[in-house]
Amino acid sequence: MNSQFARRMDDVRASTIREILKVTEQPEIISFAGGLPAPELFPVEEILRATGRVLSEDGAAALQYGPSEGFSPLRERFAADSRQRGIDCTADDILITTGSQQSLDLVGKIFLNPGDCVLTENPTYLAAIQSFQTCEARFAAVPTDKDGLIPEALPALIEREKPRFLYTIPNFQNPTGVTLTAQRRQSLYSIAARYGLIILEDDPYGCLRYAGTSVPPIKALDSEGIVIYLSTISKTIAPGLRVGWLVANEQIRRKLTIVKQACDLHTSSLDQRIVYSYLTGCDNDAHVAMIRKSYGERHAVMAAALAETMPEGFSWTNPEGGMFLWVTCPEGVNTNELMQQALARKVLFVPGQDFFSNDPGIRYMRLNFSNASMEQIQEGIGRLAEVCANAVLEAIRC
Amino acid sequence: MNSQFARRMDDVRASTIREILKVTEQPEIISFAGGLPAPELFPVEEILRATGRVLSEDGAAALQYGPSEGFSPLRERFAADSRQRGIDCTADDILITTGSQQSLDLVGKIFLNPGDCVLTENPTYLAAIQSFQTCEARFAAVPTDKDGLIPEALPALIEREKPRFLYTIPNFQNPTGVTLTAQRRQSLYSIAARYGLIILEDDPYGCLRYAGTSVPPIKALDSEGIVIYLSTISKTIAPGLRVGWLVANEQIRRKLTIVKQACDLHTSSLDQRIVYSYLTGCDNDAHVAMIRKSYGERHAVMAAALAETMPEGFSWTNPEGGMFLWVTCPEGVNTNELMQQALARKVLFVPGQDFFSNDPGIRYMRLNFSNASMEQIQEGIGRLAEVCANAVLEAIRC
Repeated sequence: MNSQFARRMDDVRASTIREILKVTEQPEIISFAGGLPAPELFPVEEILRATGRVLSEDGAAALQYGPSEGFSPLRERFAADSRQRGIDCTADDILITTGSQQSLDLVGKIFLNPGDCVLTENPTYLAAIQSFQTCEARFAAVPTDKDGLIPEALPALIEREKPRFLYTIPNFQNPTGVTLTAQRRQSLYSIAARYGLIILEDDPYGCLRYAGTSVPPIKALDSEGIVIYLSTISKTIAPGLRVGWLVANEQIRRKLTIVKQACDLHTSSLDQRIVYSYLTGCDNDAHVAMIRKSYGERHAVMAAALAETMPEGFSWTNPEGGMFLWVTCPEGVNTNELMQQALARKVLFVPGQDFFSNDPGIRYMRLNFSNASMEQIQEGIGRLAEVCANAVLEAIRC
Repeated sequence: MNSQFARRMDDVRASTIREILKVTEQPEIISFAGGLPAPELFPVEEILRATGRVLSEDGAAALQYGPSEGFSPLRERFAADSRQRGIDCTADDILITTGSQQSLDLVGKIFLNPGDCVLTENPTYLAAIQSFQTCEARFAAVPTDKDGLIPEALPALIEREKPRFLYTIPNFQNPTGVTLTAQRRQSLYSIAARYGLIILEDDPYGCLRYAGTSVPPIKALDSEGIVIYLSTISKTIAPGLRVGWLVANEQIRRKLTIVKQACDLHTSSLDQRIVYSYLTGCDNDAHVAMIRKSYGERHAVMAAALAETMPEGFSWTNPEGGMFLWVTCPEGVNTNELMQQALARKVLFVPGQDFFSNDPGIRYMRLNFSNASMEQIQEGIGRLAEVCANAVLEAIRC
């Protein structure tokens, strides 16, 4: 019966995270599993007022079909935001998407034939893997270290794999929390330009820096027009609205727009106008500063709790922003099994395996620190550390 | 340089309609080109109140990520609406999509390998053609007449073309306005069941019947689970919200859900909750009845104006609902050329060509009657009739 489905369905899996998230609806569970922003920080009142303005001033337009490229004033606004990040662009260079996830789908569609190679960090964002799998892509992993991907490894990979594009999350990467240094961004860009390699730069977390110094996006270096830059309001305003944007050269953007028409005609007119009205009527910079501060505090609590309670042999990244850190367990620990034990202790994380595009690693876990209170983080890491200590004992026994 | 793009981009074209729509923003133009509902009938006040309820009662949840399957209470509601149409289903059978356009994209993705055949009415909805083209589908046309597709033609087509599915719009078809009779639905279903052929039943307009007797959906006959039924709130509440739904058997729906995760994670949480709150807090049946009445009146004005002013040799369909009728011009008239002349007279329609999946016809036009006032319809058809009369004279001269 399975043969009734297209080939691409052979590889595409349901997201483990989305399956895990169903469990987290039990209130007594402390979850570090999801990638959810802190809901108590959402600007609910401001969104309510923005919606009032939108519907009372131009309600019919907000409920009508709109252009596939997006609501023009919002394109202007996202262009201005992108320029503030160092990207040379105008409203014409912007395509508004139904969240950055849609951007991944669109980019895959315009570039990937079955069997084509995508270069990724390894591990990388699992729903990007999932998305490119629907185009029957194969993956090649760029070696990484604590400063992100290693540009020197690229020429050999590019020559051997002939990739259609490189997918990277340079700021506070999902899942590792690692940031690509400015120098590496420069090297990466130079190599990509030399080979004509497209870079898909996914930047959902860039505004969430709570420590260290901000690094300009790769797109800011893009004199050749080879970088497609993705961003979103999901982590700074609200993910439930499904509004993101991309910046790309005209030829690429035109293809993406045509494909977007076929995907969903356009992004919700109402949501786009709400976002625009919110951004023009409120002090979003202050709002984002407040999120940054809160996530920085939560990260500090998690880092301190890990340092205090985790058994020897475990290590973790030290992100300067974003929502995640990445734990490496000692050899012999399998985090897929660990998760069952954690669940019994009512604490949740995501096993690292699904984040690998190649050679799945089983001794990793991703911890999210944006969606639990500081008390929950303290308590949850304590529980997790006990589970880890037991797992180490178990591993020694075996 | 074009070779940098995937093969599927060779065939996918920008929608002519979306290009034409850009012109219609000039206010003096009377447009029968778009597929837009009447914005003056949108329930703006009610949506505003519904939004107020959603954001004040459960604002954080409305702004947070949600399940890919959709907001549970809205799935319940759409299941109830589907049951009212004769479809045996529960909330579990429903997948909420970012408008029905996304349903087309998802269905194409799970079924179509490059070169696979899709059976369609010919002409058919042009963005469905566009969507299946992104999967590199080929098309085979089912012969049609004034009662819709002719089931007797199916067995030979199915045996020859081995289609992955049949795409049909049985109610007030886009672009022709034609409705598939109950008897033909039964025959179509029996043949499809015999061959195990999946039917993709797209029903955006079924609630907009202003004349004649309602016909149950094909899905109501679906004892075998071979029909995927699509509907939407775009034509009955508001298209700008991008909320649709589909009903499908479990195996298919699970695949569609996985693919939806990769496309946009989920449909806007806020929009889904607004729709739910609107549907439970307002009398939407009365609202839709009002739309039906208004579209019936507009259709009557258009039909009368056509009868009164169009030159000999032109004929048109007589839809009992929906938003479109379809004009057949005499041999020798090319509606692509006619459109330029119409534009000069500040009246717009869509040339029929792009609605054909095979053997493009150049003597057809689609007229929309939902998005112009009765005065505009009267005036616009008068202008169009003059343009047509000139075209006939021109055709005779050549």
